[in-house]
Amino acid sequence: MKFKILLLLGLSTQVFAQKKPKNVIFLIGDGMGLSQISTLVYFKDSASNFETFKHIGFSKTSSTSHKVTDSAAGATAFTTGQKSYNRAIGVSKDTVSLPTILEQLEAKNYKTGLISLCTITHATPASFYAHVKDRDMFEEIATDLSNSGVDFFAGAGYKYFTERKDGQNLFPIMEKKGFVLDTVSLKTNLDPKKRYGFLLDRLDHPAKDKGRGEFLPDATKLALSYLSKNKDGFFLMSEGSYIDWAGHQNNAEMLVMEQLDFDKVVGIALDFAKKDKNTLVIVTADHETGATAIEKGKTADKVQVTFNTDQHTGTMVPVFAYGPGSELFQGIYQNNEIYHKLKALLDF
Amino acid sequence: MKFKILLLLGLSTQVFAQKKPKNVIFLIGDGMGLSQISTLVYFKDSASNFETFKHIGFSKTSSTSHKVTDSAAGATAFTTGQKSYNRAIGVSKDTVSLPTILEQLEAKNYKTGLISLCTITHATPASFYAHVKDRDMFEEIATDLSNSGVDFFAGAGYKYFTERKDGQNLFPIMEKKGFVLDTVSLKTNLDPKKRYGFLLDRLDHPAKDKGRGEFLPDATKLALSYLSKNKDGFFLMSEGSYIDWAGHQNNAEMLVMEQLDFDKVVGIALDFAKKDKNTLVIVTADHETGATAIEKGKTADKVQVTFNTDQHTGTMVPVFAYGPGSELFQGIYQNNEIYHKLKALLDF
Repeated sequence: MKFKILLLLGLSTQVFAQKKPKNVIFLIGDGMGLSQISTLVYFKDSASNFETFKHIGFSKTSSTSHKVTDSAAGATAFTTGQKSYNRAIGVSKDTVSLPTILEQLEAKNYKTGLISLCTITHATPASFYAHVKDRDMFEEIATDLSNSGVDFFAGAGYKYFTERKDGQNLFPIMEKKGFVLDTVSLKTNLDPKKRYGFLLDRLDHPAKDKGRGEFLPDATKLALSYLSKNKDGFFLMSEGSYIDWAGHQNNAEMLVMEQLDFDKVVGIALDFAKKDKNTLVIVTADHETGATAIEKGKTADKVQVTFNTDQHTGTMVPVFAYGPGSELFQGIYQNNEIYHKLKALLDF
Repeated sequence: MKFKILLLLGLSTQVFAQKKPKNVIFLIGDGMGLSQISTLVYFKDSASNFETFKHIGFSKTSSTSHKVTDSAAGATAFTTGQKSYNRAIGVSKDTVSLPTILEQLEAKNYKTGLISLCTITHATPASFYAHVKDRDMFEEIATDLSNSGVDFFAGAGYKYFTERKDGQNLFPIMEKKGFVLDTVSLKTNLDPKKRYGFLLDRLDHPAKDKGRGEFLPDATKLALSYLSKNKDGFFLMSEGSYIDWAGHQNNAEMLVMEQLDFDKVVGIALDFAKKDKNTLVIVTADHETGATAIEKGKTADKVQVTFNTDQHTGTMVPVFAYGPGSELFQGIYQNNEIYHKLKALLDF
């Protein structure tokens, strides 16, 4: 009888206490609306990794200045919990610096990582560590990264660190701060006591259809293996940046390849979280790009990916969540609520 | 101590036994993709009723004959649990009649109701009660309705009942089967022992912006008050038909008005379900129409609704669920799985 009571007590507690994750993998498909995700239904041979998710929401993406957001305001809403104006990086609508989720988690001894396909100073990754009033202030953003507590970054754009208008070379400064830097390839067997920065192109990585290879999945795997050695938890952001660029270019073939590449990263995150059981995976977008649609093809058994603009659009974007706390991400809410949901779960 | 044990036992049972609804309200926004729903974010003054939903999924809509479905195959997947070919009404891909959810629930003493803005013989409502190989066989579909067990229907299209090529007038036949019919207005104070049919236009209802008024919300309320008197449960389908038509016409103003009208119906369904506590509300679409998008307007504080085709598209469509059993509708699945999920919940 005692056993039964304890069993029931255990079950009930499980239900009523909010389950909280230790780690967070936050995947951003830049410009990834529902049609972009739906390309996987038609162009992936097997089930997409998105089919694993049960907890789904929609995020309302408008910024304080524009009904249709840009990537800077979109990411700043996630990273600071406040909506701001288009072009804002980690600052409020009055251009005041706001603490970001990354900085707040670093204060709790989290290890943090950022991965992007474009320059690491680009709006989406920048909004996690930088505070500038305009997204194009790339050198100031690079300086903010050099002063940040980020433990791992991988992307491109070493130009803004080593070929600066102010004549500074940030690499030696960053090395003094414990960073191991590389502009050629991802290393393996990373030392958990060191910090790592990989910027494998002067500006942006090539697109998938221009020979990028497995950078995004590989960097995500590498980051997970490195960050997960930290006993106090980790936060990793990995960005499928070129889903957005394919939309801007109205390039259907590029879009499908980028979406397939991002789906692989989603699979890597889910595989990690399934084993770890203590990791929350969030997959979302900052906005939709291209008014992308899936229209009928030349024959009934074919579809074609189409675009109606080379700009961002204002449709809601899906949010997918897996792992402890994932049920919090159900429903329809403003994009900046994602920060507050994470805050409620991670107590930062 | 005993009280505590019982309390815990109760809670645990609640968690592990699948909660099952008695009643189902199944709302179809024909052609309603995510952008159509997103218009509510920009054009409704208050929060949309969609914001109530926590259990959200996506349905994959392809038919057996076409990657991009039509409304007939789309609805037939919901009503029979089998994907079929474009233009199929309640028949398999080999044109064999399939039992529909409505017929199967009627065999379990459910009361059933169907509401549409277009002719009640149109593809979406027809797929719930008719079995014909082509959606344009309107007179055969009307005959199927006259022979069906449907208890309540409201829509338009009396032409197919009273002005038929075969010279038959179905109205007297239907009255003999217990139907009270009306071609002028919705009645009130319906007698639960009678059946009701309201066909308020010769062909289709006018669109909302052409003076339709409150037909869809009013008919939905009336149906709920009538059907819910049945102790054995009810199934009501109500269709926001002209969301699709606005897409076909690339008419942004019409789309917004139709989406607002449908949102009102969603609110009516949710209000009923919240009070009743025994009703599952499903809101979904058969497909998206128009490659509809929300693009930036003339100024930063404005958006415009745009279209890229006058056809259906193949993007996934959202599924929203509320009430007992609603968690089953989370995730990504084929459109015909919606039938099987309902079957698992209602044991028909």
